[in-house]
Amino acid sequence: MSTGSLEALIQALRRLPGVGVKSAQRMAFHLLQHDRAGAQELARALAHATEAVKHCRSCHTFTEHDLCEVCADPARDASVLCVVETPADQAALERSGSYHGLYYVLMGRISPLDGVGASAIGARALLERAADGGVQEVILATSFTAEGEATAHVLSEGLKSLGVRVTRLARGVPAGSELEYVDLSTIAHAMVDRR
Amino acid sequence: MSTGSLEALIQALRRLPGVGVKSAQRMAFHLLQHDRAGAQELARALAHATEAVKHCRSCHTFTEHDLCEVCADPARDASVLCVVETPADQAALERSGSYHGLYYVLMGRISPLDGVGASAIGARALLERAADGGVQEVILATSFTAEGEATAHVLSEGLKSLGVRVTRLARGVPAGSELEYVDLSTIAHAMVDRR
Ligand SMILES: [Zn+2]
Ligand SMILES: [Zn+2]
Repeated sequence: MSTGSLEALIQALRRLPGVGVKSAQRMAFHLLQHDRAGAQELARALAHATEAVKHCRSCHTFTEHDLCEVCADPARDASVLCVVETPADQAALERSGSYHGLYYVLMGRISPLDGVGASAIGARALLERAADGGVQEVILATSFTAEGEATAHVLSEGLKSLGVRVTRLARGVPAGSELEYVDLSTIAHAMVDRR
Repeated sequence: MSTGSLEALIQALRRLPGVGVKSAQRMAFHLLQHDRAGAQELARALAHATEAVKHCRSCHTFTEHDLCEVCADPARDASVLCVVETPADQAALERSGSYHGLYYVLMGRISPLDGVGASAIGARALLERAADGGVQEVILATSFTAEGEATAHVLSEGLKSLGVRVTRLARGVPAGSELEYVDLSTIAHAMVDRR
């Protein structure tokens, strides 16, 4: 079984989050035995995405352009900025249809135990973005977990010093839950009741 | 979030066994946000493995050569053939140090519910291999699951008609378990006690 390129594939698969050695082995065997076309497609998709996907200049989410589609849309309300942790959270808000402003995607959250502080999530860039003159309200839509609350707390301190209105999604969102798993009507209610 | 190459990456990751849409999203975000080098390494490993890895002419396991290392080793006992389901099972037997013959790797097992019959696991090629004159004993080391037992049963019928001795790993292996997860001393005992 000491096949160099098979072993290399198993090791490379282990770099995926949540994939241990047994899963990586199962994935490699499956691809080589039953889905080589899928393996080649995945190889192409990985190579292309790592080359094409960058961060939106304005909101920091993933995009292939200088500005993402939302930021480039003149119909969005540029006076409101909604701060989320991940593109998945942003997508959940979009699907809820309850928000028409712009976003700032942190691409993470403050997590002291993992050594992730305010600088790692680009808090300074958010403050600069919020201070650009057009923003009148910042909605903090980080998760209602300990880390999401800590992130919201730290950000609200900095944002309030800028003089912008800072709100938080209403606690209609069940405590302890990750935003991306919340049902859409709950998100919509929480958006209306933001405080 | 409708970034074409990001969406394509998420879809491609979903072809991995056991990966749903949420996992694929998490994997894609992780790679693009925190480990682009890992993504590129995985892309290279996939492309290389799909090109380089083929099947051993003799035992059907994965190899980059015409014959795998085990089959090419003149020190192995060519009069005994051990039939396993997967390269992972073969690796477990090798690690147990209890076996010095050759292998035949089915790359699957009979599973009527999934439409996998004797032909899909290369039963005919195994019979040809076992009938090549040098093989005196075939050890059926398929898993002790319903499907593994069914596979062993079907294969033993065909093999006995060839006049070779057909044995099965002793039931020291706990019933219902997959061979690759069994501890090595249990495998070694079952090898000694084969019937
Ligand atoms: Zn943007
Ligand atoms: Zn071989």
